[in-house]
Amino acid sequence: MEKFKIIFYPDNKTIEVEKGKSILSAAISIGVYINSSCGGDGVCGRCKVILKKGQVFTQPTGRISLEERKKGIYLACLTTAQSDLEVEIPPESRLDLEKLSLEEIDLRLKGLYSESEDVEPSESVLGEEIFVHSPLATKLYLELPPPNLEDKISDLERLYRQIRRIQDIPIMQTGLSNIRRLGELLRSADWKITVTLGKRNGTAEIVLIEPGNTSLKNFGLAFDIGTTTISGQLVDLNTKKVLGTKATYNKQASFGSDIITRIIYAQEQDGLEKLHHAVIDGMNQMIQELIHEHNIDLNDVNCILCAGNTTMVHLLLRVDPTYIRREPYVPTANFVPTIRAAESGIKINPRGLLSCVPGVSSYAGGDVTAGVLSCGLDSVEDLSILIDIGTNGEIVLGNRDFLISASASAGPAFEGSGVACGMRSSRGAIQKVKITPADFQVTYNAIGEVKPRGICGSGYIDIIAQMLQAGLLDKNGKIKMIKHKRIRDGEYGREFVLAFKEETDSTSDIVVTEVDIENIKRAKAAIYSATSALIKYMALDFSKIKKIFIAGGFGTSIDVDNAISIGLLPDLDRSRFIFVGNSSLAGARAILLSYEAMKKVNEIARKITYFELSVEPGYMDEYMAALFFPHTDLAKFPSIKVKEGRSLS
Amino acid sequence: MEKFKIIFYPDNKTIEVEKGKSILSAAISIGVYINSSCGGDGVCGRCKVILKKGQVFTQPTGRISLEERKKGIYLACLTTAQSDLEVEIPPESRLDLEKLSLEEIDLRLKGLYSESEDVEPSESVLGEEIFVHSPLATKLYLELPPPNLEDKISDLERLYRQIRRIQDIPIMQTGLSNIRRLGELLRSADWKITVTLGKRNGTAEIVLIEPGNTSLKNFGLAFDIGTTTISGQLVDLNTKKVLGTKATYNKQASFGSDIITRIIYAQEQDGLEKLHHAVIDGMNQMIQELIHEHNIDLNDVNCILCAGNTTMVHLLLRVDPTYIRREPYVPTANFVPTIRAAESGIKINPRGLLSCVPGVSSYAGGDVTAGVLSCGLDSVEDLSILIDIGTNGEIVLGNRDFLISASASAGPAFEGSGVACGMRSSRGAIQKVKITPADFQVTYNAIGEVKPRGICGSGYIDIIAQMLQAGLLDKNGKIKMIKHKRIRDGEYGREFVLAFKEETDSTSDIVVTEVDIENIKRAKAAIYSATSALIKYMALDFSKIKKIFIAGGFGTSIDVDNAISIGLLPDLDRSRFIFVGNSSLAGARAILLSYEAMKKVNEIARKITYFELSVEPGYMDEYMAALFFPHTDLAKFPSIKVKEGRSLS
Repeated sequence: MEKFKIIFYPDNKTIEVEKGKSILSAAISIGVYINSSCGGDGVCGRCKVILKKGQVFTQPTGRISLEERKKGIYLACLTTAQSDLEVEIPPESRLDLEKLSLEEIDLRLKGLYSESEDVEPSESVLGEEIFVHSPLATKLYLELPPPNLEDKISDLERLYRQIRRIQDIPIMQTGLSNIRRLGELLRSADWKITVTLGKRNGTAEIVLIEPGNTSLKNFGLAFDIGTTTISGQLVDLNTKKVLGTKATYNKQASFGSDIITRIIYAQEQDGLEKLHHAVIDGMNQMIQELIHEHNIDLNDVNCILCAGNTTMVHLLLRVDPTYIRREPYVPTANFVPTIRAAESGIKINPRGLLSCVPGVSSYAGGDVTAGVLSCGLDSVEDLSILIDIGTNGEIVLGNRDFLISASASAGPAFEGSGVACGMRSSRGAIQKVKITPADFQVTYNAIGEVKPRGICGSGYIDIIAQMLQAGLLDKNGKIKMIKHKRIRDGEYGREFVLAFKEETDSTSDIVVTEVDIENIKRAKAAIYSATSALIKYMALDFSKIKKIFIAGGFGTSIDVDNAISIGLLPDLDRSRFIFVGNSSLAGARAILLSYEAMKKVNEIARKITYFELSVEPGYMDEYMAALFFPHTDLAKFPSIKVKEGRSLS
Repeated sequence: MEKFKIIFYPDNKTIEVEKGKSILSAAISIGVYINSSCGGDGVCGRCKVILKKGQVFTQPTGRISLEERKKGIYLACLTTAQSDLEVEIPPESRLDLEKLSLEEIDLRLKGLYSESEDVEPSESVLGEEIFVHSPLATKLYLELPPPNLEDKISDLERLYRQIRRIQDIPIMQTGLSNIRRLGELLRSADWKITVTLGKRNGTAEIVLIEPGNTSLKNFGLAFDIGTTTISGQLVDLNTKKVLGTKATYNKQASFGSDIITRIIYAQEQDGLEKLHHAVIDGMNQMIQELIHEHNIDLNDVNCILCAGNTTMVHLLLRVDPTYIRREPYVPTANFVPTIRAAESGIKINPRGLLSCVPGVSSYAGGDVTAGVLSCGLDSVEDLSILIDIGTNGEIVLGNRDFLISASASAGPAFEGSGVACGMRSSRGAIQKVKITPADFQVTYNAIGEVKPRGICGSGYIDIIAQMLQAGLLDKNGKIKMIKHKRIRDGEYGREFVLAFKEETDSTSDIVVTEVDIENIKRAKAAIYSATSALIKYMALDFSKIKKIFIAGGFGTSIDVDNAISIGLLPDLDRSRFIFVGNSSLAGARAILLSYEAMKKVNEIARKITYFELSVEPGYMDEYMAALFFPHTDLAKFPSIKVKEGRSLS
């Protein structure tokens, strides 16, 4: 196929494209930003470019005036190269920066829009392997028989016929913009094309039609949108291979650290818009980094599957979350239809699809259902429990007969936020710690085997457990006054030095403070008591639970002994615990890769009963009783020997 | 429900609206034009208005900059009144006039964009009565049970549940813009709402959600888009009543009088865009007139059903028609998906739907299939034929076992175009004529019983038949030189004066010229010979045909004797002829009103075989033989006595 070179000014970037590729699509491929709000349908008229040199083929449009046309202005989405080109992007067609409020620009300048970091891909217990491979977007390479006097069906019906020879699709949809391009495209591509089929609410949509065989280039994204942390994965939809995983803090945190404060903020002037932008900007940045690092064309990213709690999904889609926190606590939608990603502001292929994992209720969202799917909780006879340790701790108890969930506000401490030296579980995070009781010598392990930069959730669990064991902490979480170089009074109360500045990659000592320990204590108490209340509500006891799945973004693994000894997890046979990492992300990926998984998660969302802890009479007492290490009632933790403090001297 | 007054400047128009109605929607109701390309989804950002006075509620949008917001600028589609308002429409948000090319504005100024005229509603033979009433858009008034602690499903699922209690809808779709509005809308409407459900390619789409009960206001449009004439009807979708019917010339005629010249014109710079605008501008004007005359709010027009030949449908949707006339003559689409009308530029409710009747091939379009549906040709055992006399004469032969169609280029003469005193069949058109052979005295009847303004198709049939009978014409169509005040040589050759200026509503005598007669002769020859060739091709003869349906916009009825005597129709028992008027429009209306009719017409489109006359060896001879009144072979017209000329003196 013929190829042409396009130079974009003022970026001065050059790309070689196949004949028939739109200028918009070429620009996207090379990371040159051009406005487009309609997804390249020629409707919005925002992608105006100035042709400086070369020949183009353009579809007619009323969005370009006669005067503009005389100046060589074209809509990038409707125009294809017919020779080498030089194209200028005028300022008004450049990325929507000017649309952001001044405050948001401030935020950017302040560097709050920090880079995301690579993290280990989350594990999946049952994972996607059990589901038939049928991704949200499929590419089919087709060689259509050209029409002749005996076979004269129209171009569109010819395309449908060929697709249906391969797949049984009862309801097929196509947008007018694809039809408008079809006649020219089929003939210039010599009837050899690739269609991208998207699964859209019970129908199949012809999302894209490209010349030639591009079927090997079909990528998708799975995202877990947490209140504190956003994790994303780039997946090859053909091979199911995870190409990269990244995580970043949710920039919405600057408007409030928990769901409730954000819902309140959403009601302020521009509040919803800012919260919406904070999440999509962060995601778009992660997407850019992922495709850049893996050398993938943004045009080849055809779909994105998002799991998040109900508020996060509302904010992602810019749907008012107000009613989530007003009695009777009803969200606008638990099952959100699959939409074009561009409608939400997510920048992948302009016609690519975005789907959200269905939720159960205002406080049990798609992150929970995705987690249940990923752990397979709903498909076994044995009673199991999933404990997802996030800003909201989510607990699901059940088996193939029933599923019940509860939610506990734990705060972001386990995700490394709101704690002095906390960080996300990424390169340089202390994730494992040992403290020798004799001399308080510390050994630790940082992710990536590099100098440490901070402490992630599993690190905090280890530290507190080890400090308890070494007699450095009392059961309230107060650091004992022992004379030792690692123990001192700092700005935020008493602190324990885990690593001195010299041995770190940080500008100061890495410490854990009493405030940090208090935060972790509240978090673990919230989660333990919620788990405990849920089991009690179902008239069960812990001994009946065969498997405990531990999920969350606090590290690549967790030391179960330590987690039990601080009272985060119940004191059960260690073999029953299974660490599953980010189960929400793993579930989202499974759904991205399999329509069967999507149907399954819909069933799960309908099956789960949500149990509202806050109205449960005994819950507050449970919580108060859990505000000790490990617990007020030591009988609940028979294997833990509580060490009395002592002093070195 | 609370009501507020909105004054729009500079139009200075005032409207009272219910709380919750968007400013865009209010403006549409009162005929104030505001740009909007996205259908009111808040995506395109074109509907900016300036709030001069009053309180509004607005959804957040990145399309309004901080500076604009400070100036009181809002997107009309996302903003609702909270008090009485004064709103200014800035020039850039006004109707897209500036987008039209200078040439098109010229056309408008030249008055080519003339008013459409009222015409009699077309008859329907079997008509829509036999199909179950289930219009393209249905309104359902719903009183949702408000959520409570026992019934906490989300707003969207609550809405789906209530709809499904009334209708069995397997696949339901909703756009993000509806979801974004849902929470606030349901609550401010006290859970009493009206949903508009559109039938969209095998699924049901929630097109609109309105507060309160608007279910009685549900209107639709049926259109027949002919090469020369566009006819439209406004229909009450609840009562099935036709409120008004109008027709206008297709303004595309200024770019070429037939399909082929328009397809060629479409390939010129801006050609496709101009042809597209010519048709949608004309339709939009008719729609405006229809809703205005019947006092209907444009927001309540929820769907439009269009029948047209394949080229007309391509141009309506701005799909390149190039390949229709390139071997092997394949259109881009025969079956076009139902789209949002706004995507095509048709202005009804911004979220309303547009559906096109499916066609068979490049030269047998949706006008033919709609006609077959309307006559019920496909559902009886008896052999019938449908002769649709338009710029393209369309002939369909068949019964419930087979259907075959042919097309003949007849020219626009029967539609009153390209003939000296021709006009559409509307008020003032001479439609019936008698000429007494003794003294050439003329009596005529004009539509509406008013002074005549011109001659419509059925008038021309009568005139020529009567002139032949009076011995005024020879069989070639030449006017005999007889000395009489009505016969004279004019600018365009010899002519016969039908009505002298004094007795007319015209600025000159109403005449029929030899050139007119030649045009009618060619038209009738094309249609007769096509009919004849088709019957011969099927190894049948006319005697086997039980019913002959005559369709076309040439008058409110046709004198069959006269039509036979000029050789337009075959010489058969008069009782077999049924005049059905505009069968394409009647079919479109039937489909608009019934999904069953839509399924039926899909079957018809698949069932029809298209017979290409131009490649048929004997066709040209047939045509040449028919270029006489009534025919070269008088044996084909046994009941017609050809009168030899004579002279009065």
